Amino acid sequence: MTSRVVCPGSYDPVHGGHLDVIRRAAALFDEVVVAILHNPAKTGTFPIEQRIAFIEAATADLPAVRVQAFPTRLIVDIAREVGATALLKGLRNASDYAYEIPMASMNRALTGIETIFLPGDPAVAHLSSSLVKEVCALGGDITGMVPDSVREALEARRG
Amino acid sequence: MTSRVVCPGSYDPVHGGHLDVIRRAAALFDEVVVAILHNPAKTGTFPIEQRIAFIEAATADLPAVRVQAFPTRLIVDIAREVGATALLKGLRNASDYAYEIPMASMNRALTGIETIFLPGDPAVAHLSSSLVKEVCALGGDITGMVPDSVREALEARRG
Amino acid sequence: MTSRVVCPGSYDPVHGGHLDVIRRAAALFDEVVVAILHNPAKTGTFPIEQRIAFIEAATADLPAVRVQAFPTRLIVDIAREVGATALLKGLRNASDYAYEIPMASMNRALTGIETIFLPGDPAVAHLSSSLVKEVCALGGDITGMVPDSVREALEARRG
Amino acid sequence: MTSRVVCPGSYDPVHGGHLDVIRRAAALFDEVVVAILHNPAKTGTFPIEQRIAFIEAATADLPAVRVQAFPTRLIVDIAREVGATALLKGLRNASDYAYEIPMASMNRALTGIETIFLPGDPAVAHLSSSLVKEVCALGGDITGMVPDSVREALEARRG
Amino acid sequence: MTSRVVCPGSYDPVHGGHLDVIRRAAALFDEVVVAILHNPAKTGTFPIEQRIAFIEAATADLPAVRVQAFPTRLIVDIAREVGATALLKGLRNASDYAYEIPMASMNRALTGIETIFLPGDPAVAHLSSSLVKEVCALGGDITGMVPDSVREALEARRG
Amino acid sequence: MTSRVVCPGSYDPVHGGHLDVIRRAAALFDEVVVAILHNPAKTGTFPIEQRIAFIEAATADLPAVRVQAFPTRLIVDIAREVGATALLKGLRNASDYAYEIPMASMNRALTGIETIFLPGDPAVAHLSSSLVKEVCALGGDITGMVPDSVREALEARRG
Repeated sequence: MTSRVVCPGSYDPVHGGHLDVIRRAAALFDEVVVAILHNPAKTGTFPIEQRIAFIEAATADLPAVRVQAFPTRLIVDIAREVGATALLKGLRNASDYAYEIPMASMNRALTGIETIFLPGDPAVAHLSSSLVKEVCALGGDITGMVPDSVREALEARRG
Repeated sequence: MTSRVVCPGSYDPVHGGHLDVIRRAAALFDEVVVAILHNPAKTGTFPIEQRIAFIEAATADLPAVRVQAFPTRLIVDIAREVGATALLKGLRNASDYAYEIPMASMNRALTGIETIFLPGDPAVAHLSSSLVKEVCALGGDITGMVPDSVREALEARRG
Repeated sequence: MTSRVVCPGSYDPVHGGHLDVIRRAAALFDEVVVAILHNPAKTGTFPIEQRIAFIEAATADLPAVRVQAFPTRLIVDIAREVGATALLKGLRNASDYAYEIPMASMNRALTGIETIFLPGDPAVAHLSSSLVKEVCALGGDITGMVPDSVREALEARRG
Repeated sequence: MTSRVVCPGSYDPVHGGHLDVIRRAAALFDEVVVAILHNPAKTGTFPIEQRIAFIEAATADLPAVRVQAFPTRLIVDIAREVGATALLKGLRNASDYAYEIPMASMNRALTGIETIFLPGDPAVAHLSSSLVKEVCALGGDITGMVPDSVREALEARRG
Repeated sequence: MTSRVVCPGSYDPVHGGHLDVIRRAAALFDEVVVAILHNPAKTGTFPIEQRIAFIEAATADLPAVRVQAFPTRLIVDIAREVGATALLKGLRNASDYAYEIPMASMNRALTGIETIFLPGDPAVAHLSSSLVKEVCALGGDITGMVPDSVREALEARRG
Repeated sequence: MTSRVVCPGSYDPVHGGHLDVIRRAAALFDEVVVAILHNPAKTGTFPIEQRIAFIEAATADLPAVRVQAFPTRLIVDIAREVGATALLKGLRNASDYAYEIPMASMNRALTGIETIFLPGDPAVAHLSSSLVKEVCALGGDITGMVPDSVREALEARRG
């Protein structure tokens, strides 16, 4: 069978931890749908088109990866729409695990969809979109934590 | 002695995880006071009268259960007022445990009141008022996660 | 109703963490049965009679407490035999929680008996029978960690 | 691509938690190799042939599942030998997570093989081979926790 | 070498858990810089001058302690500016640990600065500025949880 | 003041996680005493002289490091004997934290000695002496996980 996993998130913006999981998922499954959930009523840090562009550029060498945006809705409905085998989430640490387990149970209860977990590379386990944005806004050097295009866009926002 | 435990919460609205704990508490203690804490200055999802009604209806077969609302105040003062033997909290998972322990220590430091923990049924460990509300708002089917009357009220709010 | 909880353990020997939980349980429930499980085929550190005597001496002021030894068997059978309302366990930390939850689920699956948890006093959370014995054997002063009679017996074993 | 995952363990004997994970894995991947690791120098509770038979009987309706025994060796070598896409482990709780993460990192460091995690059904999260054996040996009823053939074999060992 | 550690926080206001860590740090290192991070654009509960005064009064007997305020910026830049050997954080519990580890990794990635952890005294592990403020606002007696001057200031705010 | 920390362990044998912590400790404190605790009645994997030699060779470039063996005794007595400021332990993950905290509390209760924690480099968090030995015994390549001399000694034991 063709295996297709969905990696949901807000990706505002994508960082090295996201890309580690996407890259490894692409080696394990036939297709990886990176699903960007966004609330059309809110702006976020980057507009949805730019979030897509950042990920597409960073995964251009991975034909199995497809990036798609979805206005806020149930992730299980997205999974059904794209014909996903399962959801796939990275686990950075025990806190992620604690947070994700009830989500996985809820999603399974709603439609039977499974959530598969992939432990993230410990070398990028400290990265999160919010921490990277905060560090950059305060003048920290985030080289290597996000793709260069993302770093430049965040630095440009420092104002 | 007559044992009387207080189960505090905002219950906005009550869900299957709450009811599991209340039901089991009612089998272990003489009286169970379900204490709904609410901030009179805020609206919440449901008005306090409706929150009470939801729980009373769902526990109508349990004579040991009494539902009572309290404007925001110290739970230890509520415990003293109702003559409670102890507070009782359900534990869904390790995160709940981590959150509840400092609360229990603080309450014990304030008035000596103990907090008793009851591990929740794993089958409903993924339920929380906020998650259930979010799922329902996005069109998910929450049948079996909350009493039917609560489900209908939440569905009616979808607009 | 009369509430009766069972506090199971090997109590080889009893220490300050055990006594903290027993003492608090005795203030919350009508009767507390301290159930010493022991394997008749093994010696342990102290013979069963002495383990009983240590606890009885340390809880002499608590009429609600009863100490009873049981050759290894299912704790749920012991609970049934003594007519227990529930099992009661102290929680010292997150590790205790992780260990106790599957036990509680198993016991509930076997006979429906509930396990009630009481968070231990943080001031004695580092105590365990094995650690206290190891420290004493290596010459450490365990005054205040166990009753004096236990300390003297452990010191006498140093040889 | 054909996806093939390896579910390693000693399965001495298989229980409901194992079967939950195997069954769900079989719905997600093309092939599931249940790899029974055993130490030829030790007896274990059941001989390796019987462990295989128990699992084969319980998964007879799942053509994707293949059961195979391996004398103790590196799981990454087994994965390579069977041409596995990845290892697959069930996660019952936070303790499992804490234990499995260093194993997954080590296996990835050795050969690059990934470990995929699937959260177990909370309803069977309390099951482990050792706990089930202990409960049965002490006279507890383990119906529903293991396949009937396993239960009968364990009961026969009670002597 | 002269060792100098930085203890960062908002200290709004200082409480017994903070003081426990500062006091112990002062016994282990030559100099302890208590760094109060504050956002000049926000008011907080107490103005920055008062937060400083509270800590200075409570640590007047500790010549190794120096209190200094910093408008919001990267803690690693503060560490560099004061010539710190390392950052020092107290750990109250497993949640603190989970929260602090990614911060420590990020700070190490940014400038190589290390974070040293000191487990807090379990007797004050339940204290946090927000919990103490909430308890006091609701009429609870926080004597012993904060210095008397802080308690009086919080009680005066009750209105 | 001169700061001197003690890093206790059995170091049988030393691995990359140990060396990461020792190396970082040596950059933070004036003196680092690597204390090898060993039970003279047991053989262990390597004789005590070899364990010392492995660490001394791997830390030859660090003048602040001193390696010393101690027959099993209380670590607090060792700390007192060498005039230590504090004990220092690496934390690999949440399990380490859960295990170390009661030890730290016990040691503080015995003599007032503090335990300082340093989070280990995530890149070596999966290493432990026992896991490295097991992997090597089963034919795995442990290059880079331990010093080359240790690897060669472990490979020689494969027989």
